[in-house]
Amino acid sequence: MLTEFKTIAGGNITSPTGFTADAVNAGIRKSKKDLAVLYSETAAVAAALYTLNQFPAAPLTVTKAVLSETETLQAVVVNSGNANAYTGQQGIEDAWATIALTAKALDLDPSKVAVASTGVIGVTLPMERIEKGLEELAKGGCATQGGVDQRNQGGAAFSEAIMTTDTRSKELAVEIEIDGKTVTIGGAAKGSGMINPNMGTMLAFVTTDAAIEPQALNHLLRSVTDQTYNMVTVDGDTSTNDMVLVLANGMAGNLSLNEYHPDWNSFQAAFLYVNRELARMIAADGEGATKLITVKVVGASELTMARTVAKRIVGSNLVKAAVYGADPNWGRVIMAIGNSGYEITEELLDIAIGEVQVIKQGAVTAYDEKKLIKQLEQGEVQILVNFNQGTEKATAWGCDLTYDYVRINASYRT
Amino acid sequence: MLTEFKTIAGGNITSPTGFTADAVNAGIRKSKKDLAVLYSETAAVAAALYTLNQFPAAPLTVTKAVLSETETLQAVVVNSGNANAYTGQQGIEDAWATIALTAKALDLDPSKVAVASTGVIGVTLPMERIEKGLEELAKGGCATQGGVDQRNQGGAAFSEAIMTTDTRSKELAVEIEIDGKTVTIGGAAKGSGMINPNMGTMLAFVTTDAAIEPQALNHLLRSVTDQTYNMVTVDGDTSTNDMVLVLANGMAGNLSLNEYHPDWNSFQAAFLYVNRELARMIAADGEGATKLITVKVVGASELTMARTVAKRIVGSNLVKAAVYGADPNWGRVIMAIGNSGYEITEELLDIAIGEVQVIKQGAVTAYDEKKLIKQLEQGEVQILVNFNQGTEKATAWGCDLTYDYVRINASYRT
Repeated sequence: MLTEFKTIAGGNITSPTGFTADAVNAGIRKSKKDLAVLYSETAAVAAALYTLNQFPAAPLTVTKAVLSETETLQAVVVNSGNANAYTGQQGIEDAWATIALTAKALDLDPSKVAVASTGVIGVTLPMERIEKGLEELAKGGCATQGGVDQRNQGGAAFSEAIMTTDTRSKELAVEIEIDGKTVTIGGAAKGSGMINPNMGTMLAFVTTDAAIEPQALNHLLRSVTDQTYNMVTVDGDTSTNDMVLVLANGMAGNLSLNEYHPDWNSFQAAFLYVNRELARMIAADGEGATKLITVKVVGASELTMARTVAKRIVGSNLVKAAVYGADPNWGRVIMAIGNSGYEITEELLDIAIGEVQVIKQGAVTAYDEKKLIKQLEQGEVQILVNFNQGTEKATAWGCDLTYDYVRINASYRT
Repeated sequence: MLTEFKTIAGGNITSPTGFTADAVNAGIRKSKKDLAVLYSETAAVAAALYTLNQFPAAPLTVTKAVLSETETLQAVVVNSGNANAYTGQQGIEDAWATIALTAKALDLDPSKVAVASTGVIGVTLPMERIEKGLEELAKGGCATQGGVDQRNQGGAAFSEAIMTTDTRSKELAVEIEIDGKTVTIGGAAKGSGMINPNMGTMLAFVTTDAAIEPQALNHLLRSVTDQTYNMVTVDGDTSTNDMVLVLANGMAGNLSLNEYHPDWNSFQAAFLYVNRELARMIAADGEGATKLITVKVVGASELTMARTVAKRIVGSNLVKAAVYGADPNWGRVIMAIGNSGYEITEELLDIAIGEVQVIKQGAVTAYDEKKLIKQLEQGEVQILVNFNQGTEKATAWGCDLTYDYVRINASYRT
């Protein structure tokens, strides 16, 4: 039986025991907070996944190098406003220097610090500003002190500092009982597409005070990322800076979690929930978005078929524009399914939009058009495809295609 | 040495000897011409290629069946306003009935007639209207008579009748000397994306009076389609109705063309030109488009790499929106290249936008931003990527992403 987890009102990445965070404006951006530090009192088991883009940004290369030498981290430094991407050897040196400055400010070994960046591509980091910003963070206790409220404020500052054209910060936390101990999982994310001017990046940071074996955490992160962040499509373009990083510092005092722990499934469910909610927040805050689109594919013969079809539908400009206009163009869903490259038994196909079944066993139903339009006017539009060919399923998230998407990305010169 | 071909001013699919065409409004659409017939005096060697969408429309299934039984055709009937797609068994029967009615009107054997449709998905054809329309075409000589001018008018009527949300008709013709005979190639196409409300389809029809062997024509069409229509991306969505059909009636009297004919390369070049121009016209008339985007990739190590990267760039919403706004966001081109899945030697990469080189050997150049913006303000924006890794190359065509694309596809309810 699964142990239930519960959401912590106002929770964030500092909700798990031993985590603190803080952020300042270092002058990379005009006035918004742009430099943030996340800190763990004790060494935290770390796992990370990176963009598959062939031009990974310098901070990704450097964080990868750090994590190839150690299984634990104690801090992460993140800046917004500059992606440190396509910056050559200088970019790599600047990423290492950012780690060194953060280690100094937090009195840590540099081998315990990871780095992430988001913002403009092709411009080197303003290192003097970053140095000053980190000094300022160090003076203010540098995120390493404070009670629950102050910690919570620090977590919120972190979530805010990593935003670029995001319209709202994305954070949450849940708690769950394991071995009689309260285990907490918190998360913060940013991202709303590859963003103007040349802003990029989906970043997600997850913290937990659970004790967990490194191998188990790695596998869990990979599996959960495939079901969550990798199922989000805002514009089909993968940024050069995408990174998901999880830190588990063990301070909850539970028996170390792995696949054989009796509560593994419960922890897994809670961890999946945190990441899925962050993924949904990213999709819903897609550039110019007015609606979240959720596409659920069930009854597929293969998992890759379910995932491909779900992403194909949610990524179709034509489907996205129709959802924006609440235009009941289910033909576009058919078209997108047909373009996924999989063999489909047409006579078995069912399609529903919200509560309205439009295709049943391959044939158009006598649906009520007004009711169908109502489904498309919801803040979350749900499209359900059942192939009735097997047992595999997948869900993908995206958003509608709007005038604002074009405006944001065209920087239109009037 | 290549024999030069020349463009025929005002030419179209009736420019080659022995081809006539005509069109009427059959009432499928309100008042626009919506039913067209193309006719060849003599049996014409035919080759066709069809959409890879898993839900091909009924006319494609039926035309495929016709061409599996014969190598020659004498007529093609096309309607706009209704795609006869996702219409089940009734759709198949209606497509066969359309062929039968056309054969009757033109006094042909039904085995010599192909059918194509474009328009709304999921609605069955109004067969009484199509029957009446074909009767009307038969009364008016049904496209089988007339001098050059009248024939030319018929060809123009055909190009017009196959349009849906296309803003202009797409046609041309060229001529070339082969074996002392004038060989003519004409073409007509339609398509500007998967179009609202549920309109679909790219259709291209090419006629020639060249004598050519069926096998050679088939191979040529496949190779040319891969370099032309398959390199056009308006919105990344492949319609259920896409079809390219070529008819060669041999009336020019040249020696039958095949790969061993001394003028094969010249004919191939002229045939490629006609199809490439049609493909460019389709891209330039993409929904809401204000600019044609041409992406040329050279120096790739594999042909698939060159093609994939070119299409990836031209298909990126972010690149398309930047071109619309003349925003010099070359970082998005980098991002799109990086997402193509190929290994790239960064130090060898050159990128130019129009006349402005922005990346040279992997490093950002000291380019003039104002000059760069000027390149993006042209009616045709050219992006050149040189991998300097090999000798393969490819060109892809697309268009900018505009407010009008969203408006057209959202049918936004105010």
